[in-house]
Amino acid sequence: MPYGDVMNARVRSEERRAEIVGAALEVIAERGYRGASLAAVAERVGLTQQGLLHYFPTKEALLVAVLQERDRWDAVPDSQWRVDLLASLVEYNAMRPAIIQTFSALLGESVTEGHPARAYFTERYARVRASMTSVLRTAYGDRLPNGLTPERTAPLLVAVMDGLQYQWLLDPESVDMPGTFRDFLRLLGEPVD
Amino acid sequence: MPYGDVMNARVRSEERRAEIVGAALEVIAERGYRGASLAAVAERVGLTQQGLLHYFPTKEALLVAVLQERDRWDAVPDSQWRVDLLASLVEYNAMRPAIIQTFSALLGESVTEGHPARAYFTERYARVRASMTSVLRTAYGDRLPNGLTPERTAPLLVAVMDGLQYQWLLDPESVDMPGTFRDFLRLLGEPVD
Repeated sequence: MPYGDVMNARVRSEERRAEIVGAALEVIAERGYRGASLAAVAERVGLTQQGLLHYFPTKEALLVAVLQERDRWDAVPDSQWRVDLLASLVEYNAMRPAIIQTFSALLGESVTEGHPARAYFTERYARVRASMTSVLRTAYGDRLPNGLTPERTAPLLVAVMDGLQYQWLLDPESVDMPGTFRDFLRLLGEPVD
Repeated sequence: MPYGDVMNARVRSEERRAEIVGAALEVIAERGYRGASLAAVAERVGLTQQGLLHYFPTKEALLVAVLQERDRWDAVPDSQWRVDLLASLVEYNAMRPAIIQTFSALLGESVTEGHPARAYFTERYARVRASMTSVLRTAYGDRLPNGLTPERTAPLLVAVMDGLQYQWLLDPESVDMPGTFRDFLRLLGEPVD
């Protein structure tokens, strides 16, 4: 195959993958995590299930691709992050339960032996902790008002966000996720409205 | 059947259930969440898989029974709880990854539609938040040193415990779960060693 054709084939394949990931996000939003079968996603993009498996060999691989795409959309350069923007992010998350449910369910599965999403979550946590450390250092320097270092505060910040999501997904009437997260920011010494 | 025989049958059935739950805990400890199949548990107690299904119709039902049994073992009367005991509980949890993995994996699954463990986790969170509220009120009165009420602090405390478990299960070398939890208690105003 001439070089140009190889490149075109690669571009087409990447476009197709992106289309599948977009369709998966739609199916998740409509039917939830359990309803988002490979068959439903294949149907939406006009592929057979076999055809879809060519791009994503398992449902887990497709879901990881959906979460990676979400990470790209949500990405804020470290230099632009501010602690108060985290409150906005949690507020925003409370309006998109389907993707938060997908994240939380796959995170749960990922802690089991040899799970295909384990590497994604392990690397994501390392990256997010590093990013939050940098945000906290920009805001507070080497010590927060409460005396903790940014390095020691970052895993707490991430734990609060993830832990609250479970309580909220199970019982949205009882758990004010954004309000509880703002309480945590106040504990860190942030002046929050 | 005479009354005594009915009672005996019920006692035998409860003993058998308890034996199965104990065997499940052993299998989880040895083989992890994914290795803990109904077949492996049935074999350990000398039942066929069909025989086991008579007691627990699904793997999820058996795992919920295991977590309920753990709740009973870990239970501390509200009047006996102290905030510093929570640090000991997290320290203890860090030494039993298999049951923490089971809890975390099943919690993840439970947020999906119609999951059989959903009711267990929803009720457990309501109970644990109420219990933590009571512990915090006993320790601090109606306001913590940082100004939050016990009611508003309880979901944060629970979120930190659960959220840290995921980070720790995925990357135990990088995440000091007990140390990070003690940092959180310090944020609340607790004098922790």
